[in-house]
Formats: sequence, structure tokens, C-alpha cells
Amino acid sequence: MARVAVTDGIDENAADKLRGLGHEVVIGHHDLDSLENGSLSNFDIVVIRSATKLGTKAINVNSSGSGSLSMIIRAGVGVDNIDIDAATSCGVRVCNTPGASTNAVVELTIGLLLSSVRNVARSDRRMRCGEWAKKEMRGSELRGKRLGLIGYGRIARGVANIGRNMGMEIHAFDPYIDQELVDDYCTLHEDVDSLFRTCTHISVHCFLSPETRNLVNSRRVSLMPKIGADGIECGNHIVNCARGGIVHEEEILQSLVAGELSTAALDVFDVEPATGNDLLDFDRFTSTPHIGAATMEAQSRIGDEIISIVSSFESGNIPDSALN
Amino acid sequence: MARVAVTDGIDENAADKLRGLGHEVVIGHHDLDSLENGSLSNFDIVVIRSATKLGTKAINVNSSGSGSLSMIIRAGVGVDNIDIDAATSCGVRVCNTPGASTNAVVELTIGLLLSSVRNVARSDRRMRCGEWAKKEMRGSELRGKRLGLIGYGRIARGVANIGRNMGMEIHAFDPYIDQELVDDYCTLHEDVDSLFRTCTHISVHCFLSPETRNLVNSRRVSLMPKIGADGIECGNHIVNCARGGIVHEEEILQSLVAGELSTAALDVFDVEPATGNDLLDFDRFTSTPHIGAATMEAQSRIGDEIISIVSSFESGNIPDSALN
Repeated sequence: MARVAVTDGIDENAADKLRGLGHEVVIGHHDLDSLENGSLSNFDIVVIRSATKLGTKAINVNSSGSGSLSMIIRAGVGVDNIDIDAATSCGVRVCNTPGASTNAVVELTIGLLLSSVRNVARSDRRMRCGEWAKKEMRGSELRGKRLGLIGYGRIARGVANIGRNMGMEIHAFDPYIDQELVDDYCTLHEDVDSLFRTCTHISVHCFLSPETRNLVNSRRVSLMPKIGADGIECGNHIVNCARGGIVHEEEILQSLVAGELSTAALDVFDVEPATGNDLLDFDRFTSTPHIGAATMEAQSRIGDEIISIVSSFESGNIPDSALN
Repeated sequence: MARVAVTDGIDENAADKLRGLGHEVVIGHHDLDSLENGSLSNFDIVVIRSATKLGTKAINVNSSGSGSLSMIIRAGVGVDNIDIDAATSCGVRVCNTPGASTNAVVELTIGLLLSSVRNVARSDRRMRCGEWAKKEMRGSELRGKRLGLIGYGRIARGVANIGRNMGMEIHAFDPYIDQELVDDYCTLHEDVDSLFRTCTHISVHCFLSPETRNLVNSRRVSLMPKIGADGIECGNHIVNCARGGIVHEEEILQSLVAGELSTAALDVFDVEPATGNDLLDFDRFTSTPHIGAATMEAQSRIGDEIISIVSSFESGNIPDSALN
């Protein structure tokens, strides 16, 4: 029986199931001060999302001496908020739930691509203002266009599968990909400029790192062809459901204003919450508040993975998603 | 060489190509009075969209006696605005361009489904008001859900193909379908209530007729299961990119207010332009101003079909899309 602290919320069914299995589950936020004063030291496991920051001090205090913390589970993918090296030296296992949100992000990406090229949010806004702006809402189709994926991991491959079935030509840039994972319908580019030179539709699916920061910028947008593989002048389109900061927001706004870019859609921003961002006033810009993984299905799958990780912990096995 | 009047606009390339082939092309609107006074009588062919109404009198006056009108081309699908019987008795051939807009409508349907279940337009609106409403924007995925198609013609089959590839279970109701056209992954229902009882997501793809008017109403919505094939409580969702009047708008609004329906998205309305429609104030309602066929690709394909129909006319052949 494990003592589990849940600091950023959890799917209700998962909490019930954990309790049903005999575990103690305490749900509630811990602020940085409490964490650094050992508020988790009576727990074996802590389940966090992105709101709880576990730095060196918090990890040390709760796991060393009389502290019993020995596992951190990140309900989600990104572990930027966990000092994994500190966890390793304190003997604290870190796990995440990498596959659980894949399909949620894949579907939002396709949704934002279609919303952008067909003016869905723009139309809806004008309708609510009492305008039937039919002539201004002419759009373009995804079929017959080249989709460029930055990163070709799980999510990008899911987007590629749907895009290809819709009649898109699939291109990708991913210097770290295992060749065996590249589908035969995907053209892999050796440099990122080549991807931009080829594709009218670009979607971001990589991590944020010094290498990828501001990777999507006005210079690269200016390389994009504006004309689809089918010869239609569809303009250029950018979507980012990965991490803020990969798209250079000020430059993208300039590209939109200059008409180099026809639409952009962002679920993630350099600074979040992104209220007050200048992009939000631009008519052909669509945004959502970092909801890529925010589906009932993803939360339920994350819950299932947490239960399975806790069971591994109980039986002394190393979970598949262990990061250290 | 044919004399062609274009009354509701045409793709520019198509007009250029027709002129290049030696035809005379005159672009400009004709009001009902002019039409009924023979304003088309010096033309062989008229190309219309939905804005020009060709009733008995207009057809008679322009084609009989000294009138030379002998072909009506509807750039698009619906021919509710043409009196086909009158055309037949005057020896005027009526054609449309049925396949040209299929993919445009298919993609908008998927776009509206995804926008609805992931709160895209709703999120975008809140972002523009300076609100980061992340928690309220949790949505659901299409994968693992049952999609019910009312009508299983060209467009519905296109939607089915994409939906199935995204992991949806495909169901349809179409009492007129040729069995050979029903894909093996599609479950055909013998009555429409059975479709509603089975599916959490319903999309309309039939003609408007006395039989289909108000077919989607609050009684039928109340039959919908709210729970997906995957066991997730995803709520019920309706999309209509076919014709206004098939969805009973007042009743759908009641179903939305009562929570029987989680979202609705309409591209078509009983009365268009649909400014002032009560649905437009509802938060979980998404709308577009009848732009199902409004893509550059569809307009270009319509242009190609018009050129091919005009060539058939010249050579005395009956076009494939002749309706009389």
C-alpha cells in the first residue's frame, strides 16, 4: 500500500481506483515553500502535472533523511519542471505517461489546420456580429497540399497518417529519428530550410530546446511556396500544438501582416497564460489555451497509466516509462 | 463558338479558358425582371449559381421564339432554383457540376466536428477577450466514437473514409442508397431513429425534401446515447453542411440549452443569410456562412467541369451531368 500525493489534479476514476486498490490518495496543491519544507516527506509517490516545480531542494528534503518520497509521476509528457539529475542522485524514480495524450494532440492539430484554412473561428466570430461574410470566407483544401512536420515522433506520425489519408503529401524534418520509424510515404528532409521551401502547411511536433527555440521565424516563412502541390495558390499556414517558444511570435505576426503567412494557429505560447499577446488581435490567427492533451480520453488514459506505474512500484518493478 | 452568360460569377481562369477557346463570355448579374423580359435570349448558355432563379417564365421567354437559350449550367450541385420541367419542355438542357465540391464539403464537415468537440471557436473567442479558460475547454476525441451519417452519398462517403481512418465507427441511414456503394465498414440502419439511438456524433448529408425537413429535432436528439463506443461520456454532437431546414433550429437550441446536445455546428440555415438567428448567441454553437463549397479548389474544378460541358454542347454530345 502506497501513500500517494496528487498535487495538480487527477482523473476522478483513477483516484477512486487507486483507493480501491488500498492506496492512500491525498489530493491538494503544495506551494514551493511547503515543498521545500518537506510537505511530501510522508508520501511514497507524488503525482504532478506542469504546475508543481520539483527542483533540487524540494526533491532532497522530501526524499532524504526521514523523507520517504521515492517516486515522481508526471501525469503527461513534459518533465521540464522536474530536476531529474537531483532525483537520480536521491534514488527517486521519475516516470511520465508519454503515450496517453498522443491522439488528443493529433486530433487538435488536424482541427486547427482545418479551422485555419476554412476560416472556422473567423466565420463564427463574424456570424455572431451579425455579418454573413460568405465571400470573404473562401478557403482552401488540405488535399493536394504538402504538409511539413517539424519532428517525426508519435504525434507527428499520427498527424501524418490522417493527413495522408486526406490526400496530403507528407514531409518531415527530424535529425534524431530512427529511420525504421519513418513511414514510406514520408519524405525526410536533411535541413529545416528545405522543409519550409517545400511545404505550404507546417506543423510543429518537437521539444523546446536551444536548438528549436524560434525555429519557426519570418525568414523561414518567407521560403514557403504559397502554392500547393496541386498548383492551387493556397497561401502558407503554420500550426503549433507542441511547445511555446519554437514559433517566434513577433516575427510570425509580422509575416501575417505582410501576407507571407495566410494563417497561423497556436495552442502553446512562449509566455502562458498568453493573455494580452499581440497575435490575438489578428483576424486570421486562431488560438486555444494549451488544450492539446485536454480531452476526457487522454485524462482517462493518463489515469490508467498512473495506476499501472503505482502497481509496478508496489511490486518493485521498473515501469516502462521510467526516465532515470 | 457559344455565347455564354455568367450571372453569379465564375472562376477567373475558367472564364479566360473559355474565351481562349473562342467562346463569348459575358459576366454580370441579371435580375428577375430582366430575365423575364428576355435578357438571356441572345445567349446559347447561361452559367448560374444559387442567386439566379430560373422559373417557367424566364426559361420560356429566353428559349422560345427568337430566344436562343438552350443550356443552363448550374455551377454547383443544388438545382432548387431551376424549373427543370419547364426547361425540358422548352428543349433547354440543364447540367450541374456534382463532383466538384465534394472534397470541400467533406473537409469542412471534419473541421466542424473537430472544432466542436475541441472548442476551437469557443477557445479563440475567449482568448480574444483576454481569458485563458484552459479548464473550461476540456473536450473529447473523435476516435472511439460512433459517427452517424444521414445520407450516404459522395460527401458522406468521403467523411466516412476520413472518420474511419481517425478511429470512428461508421453508421449511416440512407433508404435510397445502392447497396454496392455501402463500404463494408459502414453499418446501415433501416430507420433514422436507430441511427440517433446509436451515435453520439451525427452529420447531415442528404437533400432537403418534405421527408427530410426537420429530420434532426429535439425528440431524435433525446435518443442519442451521450456515451461513446469507448465508454467515454463525450456528449452528443450535430453537424450540418448539407441544406438548411433539415435541422430544426429552434428545437436544436432547446436541446443545447437543456444539455441533451453538447455542441452543434451549422454551415447552412433554414433562412439565409442567417443573421439574427437565435442559435448565434449560444456558446457551444459554431457556424459558418454556407461555405461548404467555398474553396479555391472547388471553384477551379467547377470551372473545369463548365469548360467540359460547354465543349460537349459545341460538339452536340450530352454531358455526363445532364439532368434532363
